[in-house]
Amino acid sequence: MPKYVYRYFPIKALGEGPRLLLSYGKEEFEDIRVNPDEWVTYKPKTLFGQMPTLEIDGKQYAQSLAISRYLGRKYGISGATPEEDLLIDQIVDFVNDIRAKAAIVHYEQDEALKEKKHKDFSVNLYPALLEKLDSIIADNNGHVALGKLTWGDFVLTGMLDYVKVMMRMPDLEEKYVNIKKVADNVVAIPQVKAYVDKAPKTEI
Amino acid sequence: MPKYVYRYFPIKALGEGPRLLLSYGKEEFEDIRVNPDEWVTYKPKTLFGQMPTLEIDGKQYAQSLAISRYLGRKYGISGATPEEDLLIDQIVDFVNDIRAKAAIVHYEQDEALKEKKHKDFSVNLYPALLEKLDSIIADNNGHVALGKLTWGDFVLTGMLDYVKVMMRMPDLEEKYVNIKKVADNVVAIPQVKAYVDKAPKTEI
Repeated sequence: MPKYVYRYFPIKALGEGPRLLLSYGKEEFEDIRVNPDEWVTYKPKTLFGQMPTLEIDGKQYAQSLAISRYLGRKYGISGATPEEDLLIDQIVDFVNDIRAKAAIVHYEQDEALKEKKHKDFSVNLYPALLEKLDSIIADNNGHVALGKLTWGDFVLTGMLDYVKVMMRMPDLEEKYVNIKKVADNVVAIPQVKAYVDKAPKTEI
Repeated sequence: MPKYVYRYFPIKALGEGPRLLLSYGKEEFEDIRVNPDEWVTYKPKTLFGQMPTLEIDGKQYAQSLAISRYLGRKYGISGATPEEDLLIDQIVDFVNDIRAKAAIVHYEQDEALKEKKHKDFSVNLYPALLEKLDSIIADNNGHVALGKLTWGDFVLTGMLDYVKVMMRMPDLEEKYVNIKKVADNVVAIPQVKAYVDKAPKTEI
């Protein structure tokens, strides 16, 4: 059995998708939550100066979505054909685009501009993106692609609380009930639920 | 033979990678360059309200990186194992992170803040990211991963002019000679060169 060591900040954000997937795969992984002090020491040892990282038998890999795709393939929840993989990949990138838009606002250092952007995006951008995503999920039986469970569902579920906070939309799941379904479906899987129940509780 | 119809704005930016890959695959694709007026009409017909889109026998797919990964797999320049695919995917996502950082500055609407961010990123962010990327390419024999040509090389090559403009770094390739090697290697491939020679010339 390969040895898995996973490192990310002590939050969900971009790191939770792989944790949920590792749990789904019933992988015995070391779930190291790197605090900001430790990060200073660890950062120079990472491939890209970023987390998450996943070590497999001592070899380090990086990038949240790349790791998620790899784990999904390994656990049999990727596409059966190149076209099916494309269907998953395209929606994962769309979900990530939504996350990135919210991050532009959330990490804006200029407070006045941050508020201006938040108002603009909340009216002119977020609703259109979230409605589009919600309707795609409705067409896919409560999943992001292929009408069934794929690793893409774990990506969305993992970053959902992060996106809600960045968009300042605590009621996102009440407004977009199909997005909620994806997360509910993922967290209802027994081994995922077991992980979530014992994982440290974090806002994002 | 499946019929390919590719649509993107009349620039390279996020759309050029798939065009280079389609050329590499000697694909007879319709290279439709959608101008802003036409985009208003086409946008509601797209999957996510975004371009590029690739129609394969009338079925529409989206997202630049997802399409690039698909084409790379189809043309035999993806990984031979899931671990090799992960090595390509992680560097592609890192390249895309670099592009996204530059885009945050480039698309900033507030002119004063844009200049402030540009100065900050030019000193505190871009050099570290580009040096990291350049050194990874040096370790990979003039390629982004696996020490040989993969679809990741096409992603970097396709967005290079766009990144240079957004970073205001016309001499990027003189400073980072390994990054230049990737693009030179890709454009030296005869069928890619044939496409590039006849493609409309655009700044980004």
